[in-house]
Amino acid sequence: MKKYNTSPISGMQELTPKTQAVFNRLKSLISATYHAHGFLGIETPTIDRTEILFAKAGGDTEKQIYKVVKTAETADDASQALRFDHTVPLARYVVQHQSQLTFPFKVTQIGRNFRGERAQKGRFREFYQCDIDVIGRDQLPLAYDADIINTLLDTFSAFKLKAKVLARISNRKLLSGLLESLNLTPNTATIFNIIDHAEKVPASATLSAFESLGLSAPTIAKITAFMDIHGPASSVIPALKALNIDHPTFNQGITELEQVLNLLSAPHSADPASTPRPQSPTARTETDSTIADMKIIRGLDYYTGTVFEFNLIGYEHIGSVCGGGRYENLTTHFSPQAFPGVGGSIGLTRLFYVLTENNLLESQEPTLFDYCLIPVSSAEIPSAFALARQLRARGASVDIVLFDKKLGDKIAYATKIAQNGIVIGESEVQTGDYQVKNFATHTTTPLAK
Amino acid sequence: MKKYNTSPISGMQELTPKTQAVFNRLKSLISATYHAHGFLGIETPTIDRTEILFAKAGGDTEKQIYKVVKTAETADDASQALRFDHTVPLARYVVQHQSQLTFPFKVTQIGRNFRGERAQKGRFREFYQCDIDVIGRDQLPLAYDADIINTLLDTFSAFKLKAKVLARISNRKLLSGLLESLNLTPNTATIFNIIDHAEKVPASATLSAFESLGLSAPTIAKITAFMDIHGPASSVIPALKALNIDHPTFNQGITELEQVLNLLSAPHSADPASTPRPQSPTARTETDSTIADMKIIRGLDYYTGTVFEFNLIGYEHIGSVCGGGRYENLTTHFSPQAFPGVGGSIGLTRLFYVLTENNLLESQEPTLFDYCLIPVSSAEIPSAFALARQLRARGASVDIVLFDKKLGDKIAYATKIAQNGIVIGESEVQTGDYQVKNFATHTTTPLAK
Repeated sequence: MKKYNTSPISGMQELTPKTQAVFNRLKSLISATYHAHGFLGIETPTIDRTEILFAKAGGDTEKQIYKVVKTAETADDASQALRFDHTVPLARYVVQHQSQLTFPFKVTQIGRNFRGERAQKGRFREFYQCDIDVIGRDQLPLAYDADIINTLLDTFSAFKLKAKVLARISNRKLLSGLLESLNLTPNTATIFNIIDHAEKVPASATLSAFESLGLSAPTIAKITAFMDIHGPASSVIPALKALNIDHPTFNQGITELEQVLNLLSAPHSADPASTPRPQSPTARTETDSTIADMKIIRGLDYYTGTVFEFNLIGYEHIGSVCGGGRYENLTTHFSPQAFPGVGGSIGLTRLFYVLTENNLLESQEPTLFDYCLIPVSSAEIPSAFALARQLRARGASVDIVLFDKKLGDKIAYATKIAQNGIVIGESEVQTGDYQVKNFATHTTTPLAK
Repeated sequence: MKKYNTSPISGMQELTPKTQAVFNRLKSLISATYHAHGFLGIETPTIDRTEILFAKAGGDTEKQIYKVVKTAETADDASQALRFDHTVPLARYVVQHQSQLTFPFKVTQIGRNFRGERAQKGRFREFYQCDIDVIGRDQLPLAYDADIINTLLDTFSAFKLKAKVLARISNRKLLSGLLESLNLTPNTATIFNIIDHAEKVPASATLSAFESLGLSAPTIAKITAFMDIHGPASSVIPALKALNIDHPTFNQGITELEQVLNLLSAPHSADPASTPRPQSPTARTETDSTIADMKIIRGLDYYTGTVFEFNLIGYEHIGSVCGGGRYENLTTHFSPQAFPGVGGSIGLTRLFYVLTENNLLESQEPTLFDYCLIPVSSAEIPSAFALARQLRARGASVDIVLFDKKLGDKIAYATKIAQNGIVIGESEVQTGDYQVKNFATHTTTPLAK
């Protein structure tokens, strides 16, 4: 017999059924919370034209794209590859289907994306991304930036993690305006990159990086003073104004940041009548925090205004658990029409991995079916089918033991699979009276008819 | 500006948001019904080792497999490709994780698979398959065959289609036994294939095909008499026995078929107390039919016992909408241990296409959010955020108009997106009294506090 390697290939997450159920619960909470906030679900194909995917990619991403080989029957087609994010396919989708969309288009995509990058612990080559975006036609008001962040905060709240979430918000116009005021526009990309990495290296390394650009000590001091600003709106907005950078882009950044922060604080303070149900996916805990933080850059991405990242307090070393921002035009490459947008994404596969590794998911009973029916002999199987039907019609999940072993073996199976067991023997079939055994409490109660 | 083709590539289904919502509703019903019947959800990676996928593939499938190109950072890895069904990855999964599974393992996989076949209307290169399987270790009782078919019947019932479902069931041991008794074992694959295609060609073509094998007229008559047998158990079982084929494999086929049909009839007849709720995913309509039909073969697949297909009555030309069967060993290629199984699959992407083309989905209101909040001016946006929070905590889905246009434009957006609108002006904020306008009935009622 040929020997096969039956492990999943490197970089792929494959879960046992009990763990998969926990993963699926998080995915359902994300989907339900996005829906509760008015986002419409779409799906784009996993495979797209390489030229579409490469229109934005560039850099590392391009090296990580999985191309697919044409088959004999697809030989005439254009070069194709697996999508590496939801943003590029969304841009194509919006251009293609714009006449059938209502704008602003509040859209969510939850699905698997692919990047063939170097295998390492906690990084995945196939991963779920759970995106929300609001796409405007020609223009899109700033309040949608708060709508996106608010939705993501409510999503993390629904997870009921053991760690608190900290939303850190900035606006790229601030740093852009500062650099323009310092006549450092040619160094913009480099300086964005240095600040983006500032939290991953010692302060001295950041300083050296600035010095290697030939910046003067006063200039470095100004940038450093800026990037150290963080905290609630009440302290950050005055601190930014106190920098006395009289530049229109910078001032616009202050206005936008303040407006987003104010909207995000509103739901908490102006909500005396709210009595969230414990099970509601939108009951945010009061302990979440939202701050402004000038170190938030979001890499070399295409953001132009609001940018944000979420961290878990006390677990900053695992990196951000969510991020996003505002972009000037989603469809730059595909359409002369401008579609400005704002969006955010939860990388669920990696998030699930770090939450599990750090034991941050609420402890919970394994997900079990409601009932397992246990026919004593094969003669009772038809009655078990009938009873299962009745219970399912009441909304219950029901498995039936259909194998023929000793009763003890059947009950052992049932306890692994369900919360309750119902043994069905000759007398139960005759009387129609069934006893429900709760495997956790070891109590037995008659089944309601 | 470079001109891009923004349509999805050929063979890919891409839906507008309203249609996607209908598709998602079907997918949710499948998932809910499978869960209600005690199947555990798992997910396998989209990408797997080519040698794993090719272990079973063969024939056309092998030509249709999408290989993926290694990237610079995955260059050391084994050759990889996209999965073309859920069965091969499941076989790998069962071998890999067997020590952590409870057997019989009742498992469901709902996800996208890929076949790079010739593009044609109604065929898809990327498609959802919604599988259920029961996998035993060493042996698996026949009652699970009925469990699988019963679950799929309940799933179609939950769809509430405008056409009735006909489940057609056979057992491959019958035809195998018949051919053994006629000393036609060397022709088994060819004859299976001829009968499998019999419904797609004229009767004369089937006859010619048999003649071209050199079969005698009496032999052809016997085979034809067999393959024409179909109907309820009460007529089919006597008809099979009347063929007087005294062969152990054939007799075993009769026994198995009868047992499966009896279990499937049980839930209907023995269920007087059942009062299915209208919304329950498991409330099967009384008009579904289950018959035995000797023309059901399931192609050249690896089935060894029970085989079944579902058709929609009056829409037989669209082909089967569901199928499956019993197989001797899931993991033949990967393990010396035998894992017999029975399974079935709904090809949702194609099913959704044919249901839509034939207008077989119940007419339904487009899926709308519960509320759209309409702030009169930007001053009311914070109050809208707060009210949305309250409503979501009650379980409602809520969008907010955050753009600044005329009130009429805001209401026009709201009517497209939600069932109800709530206009929030200065006085509503002050009093906390909100009026809910139902866009369908044009009635206005105060919002319950």
